[in-house]
Amino acid sequence: MKVEYLNPFIFATRKVLKMMAFMDSKPKKPYLKEMGNNKGLGDISSVISVSGECKGSIGISFETKCIIKVAYQMFSEEYEGLTDEIVDMVGEIVNMVSGDARQELVKLGFHFSAGIPVTTTGNGHELIHAVKDRIIVIPFETEYGEFFIETCFDSKKFLE
Amino acid sequence: MKVEYLNPFIFATRKVLKMMAFMDSKPKKPYLKEMGNNKGLGDISSVISVSGECKGSIGISFETKCIIKVAYQMFSEEYEGLTDEIVDMVGEIVNMVSGDARQELVKLGFHFSAGIPVTTTGNGHELIHAVKDRIIVIPFETEYGEFFIETCFDSKKFLE
Repeated sequence: MKVEYLNPFIFATRKVLKMMAFMDSKPKKPYLKEMGNNKGLGDISSVISVSGECKGSIGISFETKCIIKVAYQMFSEEYEGLTDEIVDMVGEIVNMVSGDARQELVKLGFHFSAGIPVTTTGNGHELIHAVKDRIIVIPFETEYGEFFIETCFDSKKFLE
Repeated sequence: MKVEYLNPFIFATRKVLKMMAFMDSKPKKPYLKEMGNNKGLGDISSVISVSGECKGSIGISFETKCIIKVAYQMFSEEYEGLTDEIVDMVGEIVNMVSGDARQELVKLGFHFSAGIPVTTTGNGHELIHAVKDRIIVIPFETEYGEFFIETCFDSKKFLE
């Protein structure tokens, strides 16, 4: 796995969280999710498809306590649970992460365009990627809980 | 010009400004920009290309005093001028507007994917669309100054 291809996702994620919610996040060791496991790793997940040199998708999944803190930081409002506003916001976040990551990937010669986010939540919810291929998970820790970035691309030349 | 096709852009813009900067914005009467006029209507502009049933782009252009207020609302920081952080933020805003507008356009049967924002600023700066076609301008007024949305698509079936 080429670390230089994962860095744009890590960079974009940390930047968006810092910029929008003034929140520091620390990436932990990436790992492969077992094939066919679509389970959302947090309590609310959003995925956005991308296509260009190859097809794939980028997902994000937050623990409830973490996304509630993000929402508080962004909207100065205390949320009790995963409201429609938070569902919306998680879609906006993955859209921004995708935009910033794709901007970084251009520097490495990859040009991707992006679809629109699909957000799911609830016990046992799924995060379904646009292609069936290896899913790389990058866990992040924050002061307020964990969240996860997932990438899944159908080209072995990319993210290998 | 079918108003129902402009509404997604108006809806998305108002929503993003309200959600991210708690700012109300009021759309004024859309008009056509003269062909070949690439001049940014505000002081800082960002444009994002989209493609699907047809090709085109979505642009946004803010007056300095307006975007400085947006930045203040988002980051609780007073800016003196158009810093790198604000340049970045305008790109994020057009990315979000594009995402939300494309989400609305799906309901009308249009499926677009989006590229990455290009932001320009300075006296006499240009906002260059992805295709050479009619440019529709939607001016918005806020309590803190004006901004403009522009759409430009190469299909006469769309936005006509």
